[in-house]
Amino acid sequence: MSSNSFGDIFRITSFGESHGTAVGITIDGVPGNIRINKDLIQAQLDRRRPGQSNLTTSRNEQDRIDIISGMLNDFTTGAPVTILIYNKEKKPEDYSKIKDVFRPSHSDFTYQHKYGIRDPFGGGRSSARVTAGWVAAGAFAEQILEQFTNIKITAWVNSVGSYSLKETPSQLNRQIVDSSLVRCPDVEISNRIIESIEKAKEEGNSLGGIIGCEITGCEPGLGDPVFSKLSSELAHAMFCINAVKGFEIGDGFDISKLKGSEANDEWENSNGQPVTSTNHSGGIQGGISNGMPIHFKVAFKPTSSISSRQKSVNTQLEPVELNITGRHDPCVLPRAVPIVEAMAAIVILNAWLRNRNVNLNPA
Amino acid sequence: MSSNSFGDIFRITSFGESHGTAVGITIDGVPGNIRINKDLIQAQLDRRRPGQSNLTTSRNEQDRIDIISGMLNDFTTGAPVTILIYNKEKKPEDYSKIKDVFRPSHSDFTYQHKYGIRDPFGGGRSSARVTAGWVAAGAFAEQILEQFTNIKITAWVNSVGSYSLKETPSQLNRQIVDSSLVRCPDVEISNRIIESIEKAKEEGNSLGGIIGCEITGCEPGLGDPVFSKLSSELAHAMFCINAVKGFEIGDGFDISKLKGSEANDEWENSNGQPVTSTNHSGGIQGGISNGMPIHFKVAFKPTSSISSRQKSVNTQLEPVELNITGRHDPCVLPRAVPIVEAMAAIVILNAWLRNRNVNLNPA
Amino acid sequence: MSSNSFGDIFRITSFGESHGTAVGITIDGVPGNIRINKDLIQAQLDRRRPGQSNLTTSRNEQDRIDIISGMLNDFTTGAPVTILIYNKEKKPEDYSKIKDVFRPSHSDFTYQHKYGIRDPFGGGRSSARVTAGWVAAGAFAEQILEQFTNIKITAWVNSVGSYSLKETPSQLNRQIVDSSLVRCPDVEISNRIIESIEKAKEEGNSLGGIIGCEITGCEPGLGDPVFSKLSSELAHAMFCINAVKGFEIGDGFDISKLKGSEANDEWENSNGQPVTSTNHSGGIQGGISNGMPIHFKVAFKPTSSISSRQKSVNTQLEPVELNITGRHDPCVLPRAVPIVEAMAAIVILNAWLRNRNVNLNPA
Amino acid sequence: MSSNSFGDIFRITSFGESHGTAVGITIDGVPGNIRINKDLIQAQLDRRRPGQSNLTTSRNEQDRIDIISGMLNDFTTGAPVTILIYNKEKKPEDYSKIKDVFRPSHSDFTYQHKYGIRDPFGGGRSSARVTAGWVAAGAFAEQILEQFTNIKITAWVNSVGSYSLKETPSQLNRQIVDSSLVRCPDVEISNRIIESIEKAKEEGNSLGGIIGCEITGCEPGLGDPVFSKLSSELAHAMFCINAVKGFEIGDGFDISKLKGSEANDEWENSNGQPVTSTNHSGGIQGGISNGMPIHFKVAFKPTSSISSRQKSVNTQLEPVELNITGRHDPCVLPRAVPIVEAMAAIVILNAWLRNRNVNLNPA
Repeated sequence: MSSNSFGDIFRITSFGESHGTAVGITIDGVPGNIRINKDLIQAQLDRRRPGQSNLTTSRNEQDRIDIISGMLNDFTTGAPVTILIYNKEKKPEDYSKIKDVFRPSHSDFTYQHKYGIRDPFGGGRSSARVTAGWVAAGAFAEQILEQFTNIKITAWVNSVGSYSLKETPSQLNRQIVDSSLVRCPDVEISNRIIESIEKAKEEGNSLGGIIGCEITGCEPGLGDPVFSKLSSELAHAMFCINAVKGFEIGDGFDISKLKGSEANDEWENSNGQPVTSTNHSGGIQGGISNGMPIHFKVAFKPTSSISSRQKSVNTQLEPVELNITGRHDPCVLPRAVPIVEAMAAIVILNAWLRNRNVNLNPA
Repeated sequence: MSSNSFGDIFRITSFGESHGTAVGITIDGVPGNIRINKDLIQAQLDRRRPGQSNLTTSRNEQDRIDIISGMLNDFTTGAPVTILIYNKEKKPEDYSKIKDVFRPSHSDFTYQHKYGIRDPFGGGRSSARVTAGWVAAGAFAEQILEQFTNIKITAWVNSVGSYSLKETPSQLNRQIVDSSLVRCPDVEISNRIIESIEKAKEEGNSLGGIIGCEITGCEPGLGDPVFSKLSSELAHAMFCINAVKGFEIGDGFDISKLKGSEANDEWENSNGQPVTSTNHSGGIQGGISNGMPIHFKVAFKPTSSISSRQKSVNTQLEPVELNITGRHDPCVLPRAVPIVEAMAAIVILNAWLRNRNVNLNPA
Repeated sequence: MSSNSFGDIFRITSFGESHGTAVGITIDGVPGNIRINKDLIQAQLDRRRPGQSNLTTSRNEQDRIDIISGMLNDFTTGAPVTILIYNKEKKPEDYSKIKDVFRPSHSDFTYQHKYGIRDPFGGGRSSARVTAGWVAAGAFAEQILEQFTNIKITAWVNSVGSYSLKETPSQLNRQIVDSSLVRCPDVEISNRIIESIEKAKEEGNSLGGIIGCEITGCEPGLGDPVFSKLSSELAHAMFCINAVKGFEIGDGFDISKLKGSEANDEWENSNGQPVTSTNHSGGIQGGISNGMPIHFKVAFKPTSSISSRQKSVNTQLEPVELNITGRHDPCVLPRAVPIVEAMAAIVILNAWLRNRNVNLNPA
Repeated sequence: MSSNSFGDIFRITSFGESHGTAVGITIDGVPGNIRINKDLIQAQLDRRRPGQSNLTTSRNEQDRIDIISGMLNDFTTGAPVTILIYNKEKKPEDYSKIKDVFRPSHSDFTYQHKYGIRDPFGGGRSSARVTAGWVAAGAFAEQILEQFTNIKITAWVNSVGSYSLKETPSQLNRQIVDSSLVRCPDVEISNRIIESIEKAKEEGNSLGGIIGCEITGCEPGLGDPVFSKLSSELAHAMFCINAVKGFEIGDGFDISKLKGSEANDEWENSNGQPVTSTNHSGGIQGGISNGMPIHFKVAFKPTSSISSRQKSVNTQLEPVELNITGRHDPCVLPRAVPIVEAMAAIVILNAWLRNRNVNLNPA
């Protein structure tokens, strides 16, 4: 229950709609007396916010965070932290045309049917705008991880449409990723992606793609059998992000074609530490981190909002022709990179906190 | 927390190890006064049990269910239902050789590191044998769904190694699926798969593959924004199954290569019912079922236990050569079909039960 | 976990401190398309707010609610509802004297020890001010109950200090209760209580007392064995309220002195309905409502903040003399009446919602 | 949800009925590699089991525990621990007379109405017999507490009927308590209680009473604001026990009659430790333990099952005369002492485990 909450110890509760007063997040289970740098939270919000470049939606939101509870000066008090991100540039009038229409591949029909009512303004609760709160919570989680662990989380755009990195990169950092306008860490592929997004924008069309993510410095032992596997929780978290249609860890779908003798990761002694000579498993075995870098990929469908002509029905089930003119991203992937990082951070922090209760007599 | 429980209303708690007294499941949140046919539960267990054919492990377990609570005659009482499946054919001596070794791509190292102790007998808690309880609970859930909805869940083996169905099938049923020894509903591909499993067995090797699943008759409105999306919960559930490395819904990873104009599912009026003319979304939009068939795929790595020679280290991190001689499936996919169905059933039943609290004034 | 949340379906998450921007509440699990009258929520807040009379704290807060999410016009959308109550009359300077002192019977020491930090301004998170959000959520819950059930919840002041009602009243309503300045529905006792509170205020002292509560119109079947008994959940809820030290249902502590033959409630047929001839059980048997009125009592200790001189220690454990001059209620009970009602409403609504999943084939 | 589970980290799931195969408990969240002495678990079961003396029910159950999962030799593995207690002396035929009758103050009517079905054999799921599993889990929890803390939990019979200890005792231990046949640590009162229970038994009547409990050695900081207060969780836990009708902490209901100047507990420096000079608060302030002994009391109604004649109705609502002849305790309090201790242990262990995630930089 409580479908707007996520995480069992460091637990976030999301609220707010695209065109209401604000979107927000409340974090419960924050440890006390932790110094938090608000600028680092804002920095991740800035990577997600609209209007970063001409490749994104023209809605111009500054997405400034307002922490209204749970902090004393720059320290956590252990009380729940509520962060608001106000909606400044609302244009409710834009949505009058579509309020009685079920847009293709949007959640218009499913929300209307489920609740008997639908907030049509900017998608209401189903808007990707609600992820602003998640990003804030994720950046908060990362600061706790940084103070107590060596864990680093880095996501990047691995493909858009048919342009894809040849190999899964590793040892990236956010600075490298951000040196590309579309957060793809290969100059040539990045340029192709930029061109293809510009073309899609011109054509009133949209593109999907794949985001990759690497988590390094992850101690062994994170994740709990049998229903709280780290892989299960990462999968769950990623599928919370709008437009996600696929998720894989390590070699993922490709590993299904290998033989055991090819896919198994053999253990070695590396200066007194157990490491695996290969990492087909993507850092997770039996649902638990094994100390190797964690790798996963997330597949996004193309943005459902396109301005080229489409057919659909209205709430009376009468056929209509749609010509959506709003402010939409022709490709959400560059802005989704910090969202993937945020949700991963929340999963990892929870697994790390849970682990403090598992082995009371650490070696 | 409570990582051995799954589901929020119809909630299962799993317990038991591969070579202990029994594996079991307790189901809480069972509605009262529902007639349950125990034979139908046993029938699903029979599809999962070892020893069904010479393609599976030679461990011979009958996997008879014993319902020890929560039923009065053939009716539920609303009390928790505990089902035990006794372990009959235990051979603890088999495991003495590997109890101090970290087998490649097994959970030996991760369990040992996490808990400071490890049950080596047949993998202990990490054994796929614990899924017997999940299958029992899933078959229980299906009987409730059948009495109140039209929902049908059918899984099949879509590929093993490089042998794959050309197209995602639909309108299958379990009888059709079971007409193949490896549960692949295409005679030719099925034969190739059988051959390749026999070959892998001979070679002491193993194979992975992909299981497909279709859920039909699913009313619109199942799944809850934003963190209990039906897609999130299915992904979570599938990654609980041992060896799973990938999950996708609808067109999945392939949809990331399409344009919005190609990927969007347009709504139509079909005799007064809204339907989509295509189903790239796989029946889920905005995390909520839209009434179309739900399709998803699950990628499994090859069985980690292979008898061909491997290198690894022991618990002292000294190099060892492994020659695993146990009773293992060269390919787990045929037996994993009912596990996928069971976890899907538990997800769907919970979404359906939750929905009774969402729209109190149904049209 | 998530200790700032309460309720499993209609789930509230509380946040905010006494002297921060606002106190607030987020409600998840709100059914969709329910009309909500904001004035009725404000009306309950007005019964809780400070400054209602000269018997309460002189802090003057209007406690106007601001619903910032989850509503479209006057209807719920099924999205989480966040309600803010801004803190207007903050005087942080008042608290500089006590920030390094552990006040007797306050939570100063326990918070400081637990979190390594403490928000001293008005008690921070431990302030009774945070209950404003609970009252808003409770009034919201009551409107749902009113639209679908006949349930009515009425609390009153049963005693203050040694002045107590002779008998537990029944068939009260809020109008009757509010006709007393101290919400005690007996003119004479009410006057004595008013006098005693005035006297305590003059003396710089404080008073405790007992609040009674009756829930009528409650259908049989609410509450779930064995750990979600309605009695358990009411007890849990009431002990969340600051200063509560005792809770009893029906005859409570007195029933422990009776014999079974005196205490048992015999069943009768009343016009085709089963009723009990007595109600020693207070409407709950086996943890489940039996259809009779539910009665319970809640004991409050006297306000810990008193202005008469007290001894204590500071954070260095050095002895200090305290002379607390703040704005405090000499007796919290009149203002606690709507808090008791709110928490009871949230418990009852959750039990009612849960029950929709228990008996799928109602007679 | 999941009303048969309790506790958020060390989480117990109860199952089984009075006359089924067994009653049992599954504990999830057990830390790994902890040595557990099964005899100490059995010892607490022996204090709860029927047939200890001629003052209890004549049902003779040995209540031997069978741990079927989660242990390797005498150590926990971190996997869920399932403990079964088989029902040996079942007499289903005893219950045929009452299966269609609603016994006064039993849960017959409430279960029947809630679930549409009722297990009549020995009360089925509503039988106090299910607490055998709780006692096993509590004794398990105590062994973890003993290995990592100085916490001791001791309960006793404080009153039966009108015979009551004059003062709340302290510094008791279980040996002292058990030196009384009825677990009342005052020879004279104990004798009176024994006489009164014998008399009630002769008369076919029953008695209630009050159990007291002290928890010593409890570090400050246990319990979480605002809805997981230690007081809330203890109240919740105690009201899970059958027949409980009242709960109070510290001075409880009596403190409501005191003035603040009388009720406040002043802090002192005791050899470098903060202590309070009095303990009206019962060791809990602001819902969090303050390091002083925790005191609480639990009020039980008299056993509902009495053999003297009573009126009631049957399931057709026709009047009946009841003459219950079963095997019942004329007074449950002596056997309820270990149940109170068990539930307290589970609450305290959970609060202690949760606290490991609150202050990551302990002084």
